[in-house]
Amino acid sequence: MPIKFKITKTDSKSRARCGIIYTPHGEIHTPAFINVGTQAAIKALQIEELKKLGVEAVLCNTYHLMLRPGAEIIKKAGGLHRFMNWQGPIFTDSGGFQVFSLGFGMERGLKKIMPEIVEGKNPSTPSCSAQGIRKKLAKIDDEGVTFRSHIDGSLRRLTPKISIQIQEKLGADIIFAFDECPPPFASREYSKEAMQRTHKWAKECLKFHRKFSPSKVEGQALFGIVQGGEYEDLRKESAKIIGAMPFDGFGVGGSFGAACSKKPLQKTLNWVISELPEAKPRHFLGIGGIDDIFYSIKAGIDAFDCVSPTRLARQGILYLLPKSGGSIKNKFRLHISKSEFKKDFGSIDENCGCEVCKTYSRAYLNHLFASDEILAYILATKHNIYFIQKLFREIREAIDEEKFDKLEKRWLI
Amino acid sequence: MPIKFKITKTDSKSRARCGIIYTPHGEIHTPAFINVGTQAAIKALQIEELKKLGVEAVLCNTYHLMLRPGAEIIKKAGGLHRFMNWQGPIFTDSGGFQVFSLGFGMERGLKKIMPEIVEGKNPSTPSCSAQGIRKKLAKIDDEGVTFRSHIDGSLRRLTPKISIQIQEKLGADIIFAFDECPPPFASREYSKEAMQRTHKWAKECLKFHRKFSPSKVEGQALFGIVQGGEYEDLRKESAKIIGAMPFDGFGVGGSFGAACSKKPLQKTLNWVISELPEAKPRHFLGIGGIDDIFYSIKAGIDAFDCVSPTRLARQGILYLLPKSGGSIKNKFRLHISKSEFKKDFGSIDENCGCEVCKTYSRAYLNHLFASDEILAYILATKHNIYFIQKLFREIREAIDEEKFDKLEKRWLI
Repeated sequence: MPIKFKITKTDSKSRARCGIIYTPHGEIHTPAFINVGTQAAIKALQIEELKKLGVEAVLCNTYHLMLRPGAEIIKKAGGLHRFMNWQGPIFTDSGGFQVFSLGFGMERGLKKIMPEIVEGKNPSTPSCSAQGIRKKLAKIDDEGVTFRSHIDGSLRRLTPKISIQIQEKLGADIIFAFDECPPPFASREYSKEAMQRTHKWAKECLKFHRKFSPSKVEGQALFGIVQGGEYEDLRKESAKIIGAMPFDGFGVGGSFGAACSKKPLQKTLNWVISELPEAKPRHFLGIGGIDDIFYSIKAGIDAFDCVSPTRLARQGILYLLPKSGGSIKNKFRLHISKSEFKKDFGSIDENCGCEVCKTYSRAYLNHLFASDEILAYILATKHNIYFIQKLFREIREAIDEEKFDKLEKRWLI
Repeated sequence: MPIKFKITKTDSKSRARCGIIYTPHGEIHTPAFINVGTQAAIKALQIEELKKLGVEAVLCNTYHLMLRPGAEIIKKAGGLHRFMNWQGPIFTDSGGFQVFSLGFGMERGLKKIMPEIVEGKNPSTPSCSAQGIRKKLAKIDDEGVTFRSHIDGSLRRLTPKISIQIQEKLGADIIFAFDECPPPFASREYSKEAMQRTHKWAKECLKFHRKFSPSKVEGQALFGIVQGGEYEDLRKESAKIIGAMPFDGFGVGGSFGAACSKKPLQKTLNWVISELPEAKPRHFLGIGGIDDIFYSIKAGIDAFDCVSPTRLARQGILYLLPKSGGSIKNKFRLHISKSEFKKDFGSIDENCGCEVCKTYSRAYLNHLFASDEILAYILATKHNIYFIQKLFREIREAIDEEKFDKLEKRWLI
């Protein structure tokens, strides 16, 4: 087995649990937050700083790396670990999510599902102008997806086999099966079709993965992905079918977050997780809201990846502890660019123990953002990563000590 | 005295010398390269990394800081050292250079001197479009300069008194007198006028500096600036007059670099330095070319400040040692974004001992620049600062061991 998963503690009041994923490049203590390094780099941060901030694993994006610099170059460089100099565990996703986000499944009848987006009438939805969609076309068939590179417009193709081949070259410790992620608000019919294709592709991924990685000990772990949209029967069916396949772990896919309210996220997880094997790790793809993290862990999720701590940082949005005024209402966020911080010589979060909070004032960070200094992004990123990793350490401790419900209350009052 | 300067070695074959400037925030070993942190931040670098890279002192720009965040805020934050968390020596310039660069001295008859620039006929000159100049107007009178902020267009004023007051609030260890820097190609008449104003303002700066910093022990060192354009008699006159004033050190000002060929730079320094007192430090403002550094040190310069190592880094231009192919011809520069480095798995400079060269490949840096990752700027900046600081260490050692001429030959063959 390329990875081992040991559950070290199960919460008596919820499905929350603590564990350790043993990978060829070290341990990941779960529940874990995996920071995202899309293009083989954590934005605004030197890789050697991650460990100091408590990060154990990173996730890179297959879609971006296959286009630039290309999987072959990373393989020749000695794989992702060597290329980006991160010696800890690495995940790669399958490329599916980005390809489907680009194309929004238009060719598969998306226009019927969400005409207002295709016609550009809902500008609040990402990448939804009519022109944008036409340009960003991806064409899905039962074997895979043909799409245009966002970098040079060249025609590219991803299939289960190609995705596994690319991820094999990238050399991550944990890779994901190629799935079809249906768009938000997808109809039952569309969601079912996408789910069925996902199941077919899952089998193909397993087949090709075995072929490419015959030595399972040194090889990569492969996680299957559960789909099924917002439909209970589909989600349960998908979890049952994918959960029965010999994957090393499971991802829960789908478009949550911006498009959906919180309730479906919790409901969906409850449907899915009751059908997944207990003994294998469960990863929630692309989720990073503080409240979502609590709900998901309670439902039995072991790992998350999300760009939010680093992306928010670059927007001048800094996490704030409950003790310092953070709450569900303000999403635990402080907007440091606001003029009220121009003369605020206190630290960003007086209860945070990170280097940035111990060293710099709100006034200095406000100045750096106003001046568009790269240092603004560096310092904000350090704070946000420290914050999210510290939260996960506290969550693990709380589960261990049967205090997870109390911790949740303290955060989500 | 706020600073002390000890000359520890003088080259027997040139005016080159080694020394130590003792400041309230530590020592600066000369010849020294002072890295520039324009807006109270070294671009793309955390301040605590500077020491590891060999940096002893930084220079911040009064013009930028007076406009944003404002001298009052920095004073309230406890001064620049505390605001930006740099506990080593800090220089600030007077704001003059930026103000005159903005205005290009138009109101003082620049149109007669360089009509092609005012009319926008020479687009290769920075900020030279007719519209640009009209917008970027600065109006000079015998008491100071009125100009518009490049940030919000508000009308602002700098005089010797105001510049000293602002620099006093910023709290650097070494500050500069407010001078008028004539534009490149300035006529004799214009250069003389600017020089005379500079001398008048130098006296005023000294007067106000004494008033504001009565306790000289804890106070700031004030450097006077020699002007005089490209005219031998003016340069000598300026050096004699400024050199006789009770400044703690001297800066050589003027527009060299892009506008002038190398010869005038060397000639100018020879005229100037023979007139300046031996016992005080001499700073060459804004110079950073590798060849210029050698010529200037040979002529007797003790310190430099320049944005070039950090600015070039952000453009993907990395310094290269002579052993690794760097030369006057290629300006010791490697353009890492070139496609030839896409598959180059060697280090940036195999003979460089910096962390970046020891850790990352040219292919990775090429990828980071192609992907516009902030990490590209961080790593490139670290390499370039390490390179320039190591060169200065070698220069100091060479002078100490009477081998400066040999070192120069090895670099400038």
